[in-house]
Amino acid sequence: MNQDNKPSVTVFAPATVANVACGFDVIGLALESTGDEMDIRLSDTPGVRITSIEGAKLPLEASQNVAGVALQALLHEYGKPETGMEIAIRKNIHPGSGIGSSAASAAGAVAGGNMLLNNHFSPEALIRFAMEGERLACGTPHADNVAPAILGGFTLVRSYQPLDVIALHTPADLWVTVIHPQIEVRTADAREILKQQVMLKDAIRQWGNVGALVAGLYREDYDLIARSLEDVIVEPIRSILIPAFHDLKLRCREAGALGGGISGSGPSVFMLSKGEANARSVAAMMESIYAPLGVDYHIHVSRISSTGVKAIKAHQHAVL
Amino acid sequence: MNQDNKPSVTVFAPATVANVACGFDVIGLALESTGDEMDIRLSDTPGVRITSIEGAKLPLEASQNVAGVALQALLHEYGKPETGMEIAIRKNIHPGSGIGSSAASAAGAVAGGNMLLNNHFSPEALIRFAMEGERLACGTPHADNVAPAILGGFTLVRSYQPLDVIALHTPADLWVTVIHPQIEVRTADAREILKQQVMLKDAIRQWGNVGALVAGLYREDYDLIARSLEDVIVEPIRSILIPAFHDLKLRCREAGALGGGISGSGPSVFMLSKGEANARSVAAMMESIYAPLGVDYHIHVSRISSTGVKAIKAHQHAVL
Repeated sequence: MNQDNKPSVTVFAPATVANVACGFDVIGLALESTGDEMDIRLSDTPGVRITSIEGAKLPLEASQNVAGVALQALLHEYGKPETGMEIAIRKNIHPGSGIGSSAASAAGAVAGGNMLLNNHFSPEALIRFAMEGERLACGTPHADNVAPAILGGFTLVRSYQPLDVIALHTPADLWVTVIHPQIEVRTADAREILKQQVMLKDAIRQWGNVGALVAGLYREDYDLIARSLEDVIVEPIRSILIPAFHDLKLRCREAGALGGGISGSGPSVFMLSKGEANARSVAAMMESIYAPLGVDYHIHVSRISSTGVKAIKAHQHAVL
Repeated sequence: MNQDNKPSVTVFAPATVANVACGFDVIGLALESTGDEMDIRLSDTPGVRITSIEGAKLPLEASQNVAGVALQALLHEYGKPETGMEIAIRKNIHPGSGIGSSAASAAGAVAGGNMLLNNHFSPEALIRFAMEGERLACGTPHADNVAPAILGGFTLVRSYQPLDVIALHTPADLWVTVIHPQIEVRTADAREILKQQVMLKDAIRQWGNVGALVAGLYREDYDLIARSLEDVIVEPIRSILIPAFHDLKLRCREAGALGGGISGSGPSVFMLSKGEANARSVAAMMESIYAPLGVDYHIHVSRISSTGVKAIKAHQHAVL
């Protein structure tokens, strides 16, 4: 059987930052230029197969792979058992980096698969399918990363039952700089050290900042965004897991960042900036702080995306 | 000395709703057509004098009156000891109703006084002065009510140190219906029954709703506003103080309200609606629930204001 004649699509699936400062567990954002590439192809063999994975050691068995599981969830709801799809994955996002590696795989698979089905499903349905990938990756079907990966820009997960995800307005000149120190922080550990109870006065301060951050995004008020990028609940606890965190935060602000925090559950740290020049100064500052530490790291500089997963190449009938 | 020749201004000072559902302690709003009237007049006698108060039994002694104290704070910062002002107050907002009675007096006094000083002070400074009235009224110089009373519309108090108040976008067709049951709920009691600690998962749900409510206001998305008007932290505790609260909330939604909650620390209950017709249906529903209870009540129906305190009459040189 010659699969080369089957419709296929190549997608870019963005890296994402979840837990954006005060917006712990609710606000995420997608990067424009850092992400994975995936080929999704219709197949005569029913079900989902992963044909190749470059750039990371991940299971090829579809039921053990987040992209596979997410696409299986989509095909299950599609309800035509004869439908088959193949996925080839080129990972640029390191698993465990805290910038949505599993989310990119899951979101890319379902968004690409949906293009091959003439956009049969809504973006909200795609988020639900991709959440099944997250369930495999970390035990919880959370939407913090898959929502921005699919919708692009800033997103807010208001509720899970029912799922209510809002695409927030994203100022055009907002950039993000991310440093990924090559140390391991397990999501489960990062969650375990959190307290189940918090002070009401801290929670009030946090939701004042969340409201102000959302207002800042809609107003494109970069000063207000900067003032609102404060997390008084989670960051004080989790930041102990990240080398030089406070130095990084303080000096990146001095270098022009609006502010930032821990990306997801770490170890990556993100900083938002107005404009590319500031974002690159922040990257240089990050480098100057991390280079002497003897910890390997990657730094990404990217505009905040305006779209989520996008097709970068399509063959035969695939709808972009 | 004939005070009649002195510049004077008559202002309307709006009633306000603080603690707008999920936005406990941070989000407030101002009513357009319910409020006090006050005359502020320059005087040859230095300092502040209250010349009359209609509609409520409140102290005439300026240092014991919220309007007096607020205006004294303004004149103190103005720094010309010879300046004198007189205030005549016509209260339409019942003290203790939970719709910002003290805030209206304080905001009206400082906004009116500022008009007589050619708008010497910024709105933010006026909020600071009016907060001194709140300090007298309830022991804490909070801005929950004076911020919307001065700025109009929806406001968000992001922080107190430094004071950071944001005027949020307010959809034009948003109305509020308020029922004031004539029972006493002391602010101190209402605060005392709150727990100092809350569950992190509840706090997350609350700040998801706060972010979504702010997004809903900017998007003028009435459905999103409705979904976000949820308070999982304070309302479950305080609502026991208010007769028929849950019935009221449920049936007002059935009558067309988007949602609502306790106004300030009660006993008033507010409901937001899209359009005047819905707001009036909600008022009728409130009446049908409260009439059989044998509790006296007032009901107010108003558009959300687009301005805060406003001049409705001026004499000689007063700048509107």
